[in-house]
Amino acid sequence: MPVGTLGSVKAMSPKELEEIGFDIILANTYHLYLRPGIEIIKKSGGLHKFTNWGKSILTDSGGFQVLSLQKFRKITEEGIKFQSHIDGSYHFFSPEKVMRIEHDLDADIIMTFDECTPFPSDYEYAEKSAKMTARWALRCKTEYKKLQSKQSLFGIIQGSIYDDLREKNANEIMKIGFDGYAIGGLAVGEKKEDMYRIVNLLDKILPKENPRYLMGVGTPIDLLENVERGVDMFDCVIPTRHARNGSVFTKNGRLIVRDAICKDDLKPIENDCDCYACKHFSRAYIRHLINVNEILGIRLTTIHNLTFYSNLMKNIRKAIRKNNFSEFKKRFIAKYTREKK
Amino acid sequence: MPVGTLGSVKAMSPKELEEIGFDIILANTYHLYLRPGIEIIKKSGGLHKFTNWGKSILTDSGGFQVLSLQKFRKITEEGIKFQSHIDGSYHFFSPEKVMRIEHDLDADIIMTFDECTPFPSDYEYAEKSAKMTARWALRCKTEYKKLQSKQSLFGIIQGSIYDDLREKNANEIMKIGFDGYAIGGLAVGEKKEDMYRIVNLLDKILPKENPRYLMGVGTPIDLLENVERGVDMFDCVIPTRHARNGSVFTKNGRLIVRDAICKDDLKPIENDCDCYACKHFSRAYIRHLINVNEILGIRLTTIHNLTFYSNLMKNIRKAIRKNNFSEFKKRFIAKYTREKK
Repeated sequence: MPVGTLGSVKAMSPKELEEIGFDIILANTYHLYLRPGIEIIKKSGGLHKFTNWGKSILTDSGGFQVLSLQKFRKITEEGIKFQSHIDGSYHFFSPEKVMRIEHDLDADIIMTFDECTPFPSDYEYAEKSAKMTARWALRCKTEYKKLQSKQSLFGIIQGSIYDDLREKNANEIMKIGFDGYAIGGLAVGEKKEDMYRIVNLLDKILPKENPRYLMGVGTPIDLLENVERGVDMFDCVIPTRHARNGSVFTKNGRLIVRDAICKDDLKPIENDCDCYACKHFSRAYIRHLINVNEILGIRLTTIHNLTFYSNLMKNIRKAIRKNNFSEFKKRFIAKYTREKK
Repeated sequence: MPVGTLGSVKAMSPKELEEIGFDIILANTYHLYLRPGIEIIKKSGGLHKFTNWGKSILTDSGGFQVLSLQKFRKITEEGIKFQSHIDGSYHFFSPEKVMRIEHDLDADIIMTFDECTPFPSDYEYAEKSAKMTARWALRCKTEYKKLQSKQSLFGIIQGSIYDDLREKNANEIMKIGFDGYAIGGLAVGEKKEDMYRIVNLLDKILPKENPRYLMGVGTPIDLLENVERGVDMFDCVIPTRHARNGSVFTKNGRLIVRDAICKDDLKPIENDCDCYACKHFSRAYIRHLINVNEILGIRLTTIHNLTFYSNLMKNIRKAIRKNNFSEFKKRFIAKYTREKK
């Protein structure tokens, strides 16, 4: 899922996202609650109509944002009191309130309100935190039923990098029962081996019939490694954020198209890429545009990077259907990480 | 002509410009000479290929930019020595050199290198300046012939706001003979009545069969007033620059879509506008996007403003063909300037 925090995938139009082939984008409850506010989105008829995005939307619940972006936040059993990063005003999110907000936003998939356990956390804190996340998940489900929402509700599993906490939390969350299960609290600074071990562990526990979503991940290699470990869905700012920094993804690894090396390079970013950027523009032109701060530059790198990610996921699905995912992964990584000549 | 100073009409893709209906854009010799440099554009096969713009391009000669943007510049009979506004490096533009650069850029229409007479200038300076512009125009024409260029070459008329200088300069420029005639040195701070008087005066002198181009103009009303006075072509940053400031053009005058007044406004910018912004998005959404610095916001206002300008010129042409331009102009201005309720 490309990330459209504030109701827009940065630099893209909904038409372009559709053309690239995305079926779902992510938006953030926390950010939309602060700006433009829920009322106007509700009045518009929900996020789809407000943003003119006809395909699916998933709204994150704000647990991660409230805890990572704010200076002031106070966590109690009832919920989280926090200060707006925009104007310093005070706000309060409880599981029930977040469900009501996500209901008003009217995305197709909504996330439970969790405490995204900070990293690193000691065992004691991680245990306390995961237990509260489970209690909050139950409150979310109860409120969700009250609202008679027809949205899909996904539960979020916490437990930091402690195997037994993850297992216990997963079982608690599964007992409540959700349409899909998300792995939260990873990709927050832990070692890759810890991430992979936790995802492996959850792969054995989570039901096969429900989608699994690894939040905030990741690089192309992260996607491959975690698909191998049973993950179905991801969201990450990497393709769009790298694009805005003049960094583009290719089958041969990343290329800093902003660098002087591309000054006289009349080749497209990727020869065999079908995106609008690669079909019509040279590295030299894109490098020039970024260099002089022309918006078209980062529009083109964003189109390319999102196309790269979209194609990677399409090819992964194809490889899985053909039963040769392992071979596909091996070849992709070998090419992607090969020393450049 | 939308302005694509650095080889990109700000925030737009060439595909979007074509969809709006533009047949020609402007680019700046001065800016492209400094960044990315002429060599890479030449190596690309010219500006059209470099920028992927298949329709016409007009390159301005840099006379205006060199004189208005620089701190250091020294004007001699030979040409203008100036310092780059980017890195302070020294450069020299002569009429011959500018012709060679514009030939390399390979636009469809190229402009002679003139001294854009500063405003205000006393009569003596304006006379001296206009005479040199005429001598430079001849040198441009001579070099242009040597290059055996198949581009259209437009001469630029100077003379500040002095009727006799304008008349004299126009006759000198016409004597050299160009494919089109541009009126330079206006829209630089003079009173509207001075602008209109000079354009009226030149209307009586310039040949009917060649296009007339009023440089750097202007507002919708400026366009109407000067079309009435015989002008065929304009360029101006107003539609794109206003768009980036959150200001949009409507038949009822300008609207600051960024303002709080649009916060809850679910109407499009203009009800009867067919542009991508008006067909799919509300003022409230566009206002939100601009408010939170999402690039899509200024993409949408730019699309709308350029569509507004493009439609205005189309309707002007239609009215002229139907022989009711005066009536069209009157109605447009009455609506555009009516007090808002």
